[in-house]
Amino acid sequence: MIAVLKQGTTETQIENLSTWLKNQGLDVHISHGSMHTVVGLVGDTAKIDAELLESLEIVESVKRISEPFKSANRKFHPDDSVIEVGNTSVGGDIFAVMAGPCSVENEEQVMAIARSVKAAGATMLRGGAFKPRTSPYDFQGLKADGIELLLRAKEETGLPIVTEIMNANHLPLFEDVDVIQVGARNMQNFELLKELGKTRKPILLKRGLANTLKELLMSAEYIMAGGNENVILCERGIRTFETYTRNTLDISAVPMLRELTHLPVIIDPSHATGVARLVKPMALAAAAAGAHGLMIEVHNDPKNALCDGAQSLTPDAFADVMRAVGTVRRALAESEAN
Amino acid sequence: MIAVLKQGTTETQIENLSTWLKNQGLDVHISHGSMHTVVGLVGDTAKIDAELLESLEIVESVKRISEPFKSANRKFHPDDSVIEVGNTSVGGDIFAVMAGPCSVENEEQVMAIARSVKAAGATMLRGGAFKPRTSPYDFQGLKADGIELLLRAKEETGLPIVTEIMNANHLPLFEDVDVIQVGARNMQNFELLKELGKTRKPILLKRGLANTLKELLMSAEYIMAGGNENVILCERGIRTFETYTRNTLDISAVPMLRELTHLPVIIDPSHATGVARLVKPMALAAAAAGAHGLMIEVHNDPKNALCDGAQSLTPDAFADVMRAVGTVRRALAESEAN
Amino acid sequence: MIAVLKQGTTETQIENLSTWLKNQGLDVHISHGSMHTVVGLVGDTAKIDAELLESLEIVESVKRISEPFKSANRKFHPDDSVIEVGNTSVGGDIFAVMAGPCSVENEEQVMAIARSVKAAGATMLRGGAFKPRTSPYDFQGLKADGIELLLRAKEETGLPIVTEIMNANHLPLFEDVDVIQVGARNMQNFELLKELGKTRKPILLKRGLANTLKELLMSAEYIMAGGNENVILCERGIRTFETYTRNTLDISAVPMLRELTHLPVIIDPSHATGVARLVKPMALAAAAAGAHGLMIEVHNDPKNALCDGAQSLTPDAFADVMRAVGTVRRALAESEAN
Amino acid sequence: MIAVLKQGTTETQIENLSTWLKNQGLDVHISHGSMHTVVGLVGDTAKIDAELLESLEIVESVKRISEPFKSANRKFHPDDSVIEVGNTSVGGDIFAVMAGPCSVENEEQVMAIARSVKAAGATMLRGGAFKPRTSPYDFQGLKADGIELLLRAKEETGLPIVTEIMNANHLPLFEDVDVIQVGARNMQNFELLKELGKTRKPILLKRGLANTLKELLMSAEYIMAGGNENVILCERGIRTFETYTRNTLDISAVPMLRELTHLPVIIDPSHATGVARLVKPMALAAAAAGAHGLMIEVHNDPKNALCDGAQSLTPDAFADVMRAVGTVRRALAESEAN
Repeated sequence: MIAVLKQGTTETQIENLSTWLKNQGLDVHISHGSMHTVVGLVGDTAKIDAELLESLEIVESVKRISEPFKSANRKFHPDDSVIEVGNTSVGGDIFAVMAGPCSVENEEQVMAIARSVKAAGATMLRGGAFKPRTSPYDFQGLKADGIELLLRAKEETGLPIVTEIMNANHLPLFEDVDVIQVGARNMQNFELLKELGKTRKPILLKRGLANTLKELLMSAEYIMAGGNENVILCERGIRTFETYTRNTLDISAVPMLRELTHLPVIIDPSHATGVARLVKPMALAAAAAGAHGLMIEVHNDPKNALCDGAQSLTPDAFADVMRAVGTVRRALAESEAN
Repeated sequence: MIAVLKQGTTETQIENLSTWLKNQGLDVHISHGSMHTVVGLVGDTAKIDAELLESLEIVESVKRISEPFKSANRKFHPDDSVIEVGNTSVGGDIFAVMAGPCSVENEEQVMAIARSVKAAGATMLRGGAFKPRTSPYDFQGLKADGIELLLRAKEETGLPIVTEIMNANHLPLFEDVDVIQVGARNMQNFELLKELGKTRKPILLKRGLANTLKELLMSAEYIMAGGNENVILCERGIRTFETYTRNTLDISAVPMLRELTHLPVIIDPSHATGVARLVKPMALAAAAAGAHGLMIEVHNDPKNALCDGAQSLTPDAFADVMRAVGTVRRALAESEAN
Repeated sequence: MIAVLKQGTTETQIENLSTWLKNQGLDVHISHGSMHTVVGLVGDTAKIDAELLESLEIVESVKRISEPFKSANRKFHPDDSVIEVGNTSVGGDIFAVMAGPCSVENEEQVMAIARSVKAAGATMLRGGAFKPRTSPYDFQGLKADGIELLLRAKEETGLPIVTEIMNANHLPLFEDVDVIQVGARNMQNFELLKELGKTRKPILLKRGLANTLKELLMSAEYIMAGGNENVILCERGIRTFETYTRNTLDISAVPMLRELTHLPVIIDPSHATGVARLVKPMALAAAAAGAHGLMIEVHNDPKNALCDGAQSLTPDAFADVMRAVGTVRRALAESEAN
Repeated sequence: MIAVLKQGTTETQIENLSTWLKNQGLDVHISHGSMHTVVGLVGDTAKIDAELLESLEIVESVKRISEPFKSANRKFHPDDSVIEVGNTSVGGDIFAVMAGPCSVENEEQVMAIARSVKAAGATMLRGGAFKPRTSPYDFQGLKADGIELLLRAKEETGLPIVTEIMNANHLPLFEDVDVIQVGARNMQNFELLKELGKTRKPILLKRGLANTLKELLMSAEYIMAGGNENVILCERGIRTFETYTRNTLDISAVPMLRELTHLPVIIDPSHATGVARLVKPMALAAAAAGAHGLMIEVHNDPKNALCDGAQSLTPDAFADVMRAVGTVRRALAESEAN
């Protein structure tokens, strides 16, 4: 870590800063330039609060040289992590595809979708039981009943299930859930992350709407620091000024995260774009960029569906996406084998 | 609410959509343009999920005409809300100033700061007991002990206290806290908001880093829908591309929110800029723009302070800000009286 | 176009507004809701300045129903445009790849790179002669001499050349240039766009750092309104809060633009990420998402290169990208043929 | 300047980098940490292209310690610059207020507004003759005739005039214009900036919608590097995700820029918010934060005005803003004198 001091900092101030830093167990190297003094810190700088250091009167700016995340850092864990999920996994050779309805509505719907996504090649069933909604007046999900329906679909199809948690107090309801999802709005709900760190469940951690990749990794670190290393990262679009799409899907997050961390990285093209007809091209782009999997909304049950055509893909459209993604992945694998 | 349909939508599809909407209790008006059909919805459209509607295959875009927030909406509550807090208030003629340390560290520190901010004219004492930190390795606050120390300072100085909650399970610890703060990262932690809606405590709700004013008001609505109308809004900077300041303080949020809602609006210049020397000009700007108050970090206890100069203001600098803010407010009041 | 009026708007005001709009040749439909009056405009609303309308005291908000761009609009030109460029084209079955050095440095460099990118399958040679630099103290390009060198490389290899213009006064120098590039910073340099609209040269128009897709299309419209329909759009990353990558590459712009416009869309992964090792995954993602081509920086001339390894790809790495992109494109073509 | 090298960089690579940097006249200091090697550069690092350095394979990241702007840098010019403009100035004790119509429409309009803003205390007349419009179909301004009308208003009222240039070829038309404005969209039109650097006219440089303060200062540097030191900076709102206001006015830019540069800084609340009723609170906030002046749109001529109430203030509302701003500034001056 490097701190650049302001012009006019006195020797006494530098001395004080140096003593304080040394007391925290760091080696301190001072170098005087023509206009600025630069303080180099060597040792376990992850303990140092960069923001606090930067806030000191005499400090102009601070630069971390090593990342503040450790358990998630590829430098210390060069091999890819593979997260076991029931009879399948995320992060290894299997391309993980979590598909299912935005909200669990009723048994008929869940069963029908579960069967059709399994037939198309999905490796897990996803479905919302607890729904985070911007408005208190919008439907908040079937809650415990929704999880019950997902478990029945799991029983029938054998697909592991993924569903979102919004409150650590609900953990007992998630005992048979295979992957617990943390939504974008809760990515920095540190109390929730800490509780999930005490479990050994695979956690699907979604990037917040305005969170950097570093912050995403620091939130993974919260879970891992508690002893739970089963973290799957998910990019689902960030907030920008563009309005044609709901969010901007940051596909470069895939190769960037794969460089920074050993954890698997998947993409959610449905929420990122908010436009069903963009799901296929974005799913293909994610696969081509090296994502470990996808999370895709699939809808069914045309009689009760809203005006035959919600944002989610139909089972047929989903099967088409799966075929195309498979084609691209096989082509890339052959290309790399040569 | 207006929905613009895509070109090529069939009469049957329009019919289906219309029936579905009417079943939700709305009046539906269809108008056919040369290229597009427009559907107008009249009635209680707050119940309609605009995002869902927009996701329909046949819908090109949706526009709300009335806001989806009700309890917080000035249209239904033309008069400014005044939130009573102990012996003082927020939102009325009193300019609320919540001052104190970022983190509560020890009794000596809290007492000294409490006395000095009271002397300078602060109306409440703020201090962090539970601290949301990006890194799990950073100091997480004194927790229950921190609240205890704040209560002792309240006892001595009479200043009501403001402190942040991160977990609804901690609510019993907040029984004697005067204002419960919801931090920016928890602005859309809807489970927490719902629990706070069941209390009657004043809630200081901070705008999320990447949340729109509409989303801030919808989060206030979560609290108010539970029956707790004591909500104070706080703008504390939004995330942009600029790097000289930690965030970009959106001062136009003050007049804009005052137009949209009857709830009081305060500004936190300390977190917004992350630069102590910008606190004074931004506090003055906030007062001039019509804010109902300020939240300012004040630090003390030079012996244990880090290198004599943290981000927070010293008590003397805080007193200087208070004098200048008072001058501006008196000048504006006189100007408006004329 | 729809305008929602404020509560309390008087009948006289509505009458005045209506008259003013009718005088501009539009049909005006007024509908009165319980809280708001909505004004619907039918006719050639592209002439109406939405921002001006929205600024009127009595108007709460305005919504365009048809897009303000015409020549670029797919609704009026359903078939893909194919832009002829020398012996090749952009937008048809050929996948256009414009490769070459960031800056043209000398003849040896340009010739060597031109030969190697041609061998690897590039369809055009790109190279910077006039360079937009943030700092006036940075190298500003070889200018006219740079164009001269590109033309020599064209003569030898037969590759059409693409290079950036920064000043309409330089147009005479671009007489033999095949594609004139407008850089991101000049995307709204309307005076330059108008001048380019008077030529019939293919124009490569890069999206500005903070410009919406609609603004990109409006800038294309500036060129097309002058009679030059040869516009190629290029997404090259937008400005967000993320710092690991220089910009955030918005790959969803590809399918979104292909829906909105008939103009071809290419992707520049080099500038978007600023990280050479992200070029391959992002090029693959772009191809998979349906881009009509790529613009890629390729560097050569190891003796003079900076420390053997600039941001640009080496010719070998570029050839590897080309092979992989070809594999993905063939696989997708076969998949769609089935 | 500091460059952090990647893990695994070889001694030979470090040697090569070091030689290359020394050849550019810099002193190079290498320090080896446990995981990273850090290269410190001392000397005239403004000549070094940080982006190029960062793009090298072996470089992980680069940090500038001294700013790359010189002429605009307060470190080298500690005293505030005062820009003389006709019989008035910007940056000194006078609070500069540039007021007038968005577009110059006709003589009667310009004269009436010029008289009324002068009476209310404006120090300059602003008005658009060349108008940058997103759409080629929107009104593009009266051009040369518009400047002619502004000059007549100057003759009658004595107010210096400010108007925007979009093309360096138009410079002869600006001979009698007092302040030449560069709009936000042209902030990085470097060719235009260079031409303006050859004049000695005061230049009002507006911050681009998505440009950092550092980039704004680098654009000022382009003008100053040409010998023209008469640059006035203007913050006019940046692009964010918020939609209630057209842009987000970054008022913290005022104190931040005043720290970084000696150039005067003014605020344009009209364009920033796009909402006439926010102009007064934002103008007050700007004055309270220490801005050197304001640019405000004022409209007049009710007979031809659109539906009596455009975005611009009426002369009466402008006079009210001026009174309130004056009150705040006097109060602050007294407060600081004590």
